[in-house]
Order: sequence, then structure tokens, then C-alpha cells
Amino acid sequence: MIEDLPAGLTARHLSNDDHFRVLAVLDRWWGGLKGRAGSTERALLLPQLYFQHFTTTSFLVEHDSGEVAAFLIGFLSQTQPDTAYVHFVGVDPALHGQGIGSALYQAFFALAQSHGRRYVHCITSPENDASQAFHTRLGFAASAVQPDYDGPGLDRVAFTIDLSADPAAIR
Amino acid sequence: MIEDLPAGLTARHLSNDDHFRVLAVLDRWWGGLKGRAGSTERALLLPQLYFQHFTTTSFLVEHDSGEVAAFLIGFLSQTQPDTAYVHFVGVDPALHGQGIGSALYQAFFALAQSHGRRYVHCITSPENDASQAFHTRLGFAASAVQPDYDGPGLDRVAFTIDLSADPAAIR
Repeated sequence: MIEDLPAGLTARHLSNDDHFRVLAVLDRWWGGLKGRAGSTERALLLPQLYFQHFTTTSFLVEHDSGEVAAFLIGFLSQTQPDTAYVHFVGVDPALHGQGIGSALYQAFFALAQSHGRRYVHCITSPENDASQAFHTRLGFAASAVQPDYDGPGLDRVAFTIDLSADPAAIR
Repeated sequence: MIEDLPAGLTARHLSNDDHFRVLAVLDRWWGGLKGRAGSTERALLLPQLYFQHFTTTSFLVEHDSGEVAAFLIGFLSQTQPDTAYVHFVGVDPALHGQGIGSALYQAFFALAQSHGRRYVHCITSPENDASQAFHTRLGFAASAVQPDYDGPGLDRVAFTIDLSADPAAIR
């Protein structure tokens, strides 16, 4: 399903049972940032509905032991028939730099194209320099910082990639 | 598009420009509950993506003056081809008891059926007795309270309606 994963890791589509496991690793991967409030904030961004209704366009990467290593949650736009969207991506910090995030995006690009989608959109926080550098390396174009993009105080940078103009993005 | 609305109100599908207007009325309709943190919590449940990618299965009701009166945000499940989902519904408290919420749900039921969807799911908080009574009146079956359904401390009651078994739900 996903090529170029390090040895000992396998990928599959998301299932409903993965919801709690993903929320649990988020707290660890984000270092418990902002305590209980931070945990609730992350949970609100990842309600169970994504693990029920958008599983076939989302991926989970696990160790042979079953431990969660990475995930990508995305969907096909219902409004724009040429567009797909990546909502949330996480990779275990202990596994950074091994190409797992790129492999997840490339798998999503291929899936989006198989559904006739030309554009993929996603967003990140302006403070997240690593995320911005990562998306630029993948071939995404970045917007300027958009103040209050997702609500008061929730500034975002928006990314777009045109898959038809950047075939190298899809291996 | 939606029948049985009180005079002076009209409905249309959601557009991207509605995001901030809806977030703004939420604070008023929820009485500024929990202040800035509450505002952020509601914004996290309604990121802009719903106003970009699920507009054609979502509705906004406005006064002739353009003021927001009510909204329903829903989508077709990508995982379950027989299922649709209602994510967030709000009606101006000053307009409660006039059948606007029912009219929004019935419009969504009809739209879901036109896309071959038999089941509609949604959730609410266990504390929200009015919401539970409302969904039961509409013909939804309620689950028991599901602790931590959407994450730690985010208990939910889950509702399901079988549109094929309850044709009275769709006018």
C-alpha cells in the first residue's frame, strides 16, 4: 500500500478502532503540550467521525509490534471534484528523517489522482517551521500567513499542490 | 430548497465566506460559554475545511437582512456508501420552537436519500437534554452514553435514523 517504509513498518487504511490509539500517541508525540487542555484541543481536531467516515482515504503506519508509528487523515472534497484535502498528519518523533511522512503524502497523492483529483490542499500553523519546510520540499506552494484562518487566534499557512504539474511528487 | 421556514427566512447551501459569520453567531448563541477557550473549542469543531469541502451537503438559513438564523453542516460518508452524517447544527435561540431545526434535518434527509444514503448518524453531549429530545422526536434512535467517545472527557450520545424504515421523517 505504501512503498519505501523502513523495515518493520507496515501501512493500512484507518479503522474505527484506531481513534483512541491515535489520540493516545498524539499526547506522547506532542510531549503533552498544554496538558489536559492541549489533549482536548487535539481531540477536537480529530473527532471519531474521521475514523468512521474517511477511513479509505486515510492511512495508519504500525510497527510489527502493533505500536502506532505514523498516520495521515485525508478526504476527497465533496464541493470541489478536482480537489483532495489532508487534515492531520503525525509521525513518531523517534522516526523523523526516515521519509515516512513523504511516503504517506505520496500514497495520498496517488490515491487522490486515482479518484480524478488534481489539487491537494492542507494547512499548518505559522509557528511550525518544520512543517512548512517539509511541505515545500514535497512540492506544495505556501500562502502568506492567514490571520484567524480557522477562527480567532487560529492563524494558518495554506498549502496547495497541482499534481498534474508536478508528476515527480507521485512516485 | 427548504420548505416550512418561517416568513422572512431563506435557505441556501453553505459557502466559504460563511465560516466567520457562523463562528461569530456561535459565540452569541452559546452565550460566550467558557469565554475565549470556549470560542476556540467551538472553532476547532468547525474548521474552515467544512466551509470549503462539504458545502453542498450543508445549509445556511438567513434573515432577509442577511443575518444568520441557523445552519446545518453535514457530509456523505466516504467509508460507508449507505450513510450520511450531521456534524454540527445551530439555530438562533430567539428562533427556537419554530421548526427550523426540523426543516434543516428534513432537507438533509432528502439530500442524503437522493445520494442513495439510508442511514444518518450524529452525536450530542449527554448533558444536552434538549438535543436528545429533539433527535428522538425526529425519529433518531439514541445510544447509551458512550464515555470518552470523542476523546478523554468528551462523552457522547450517538443517534442513528434508518430513512427507509421511517419515511415520515422525510417530507
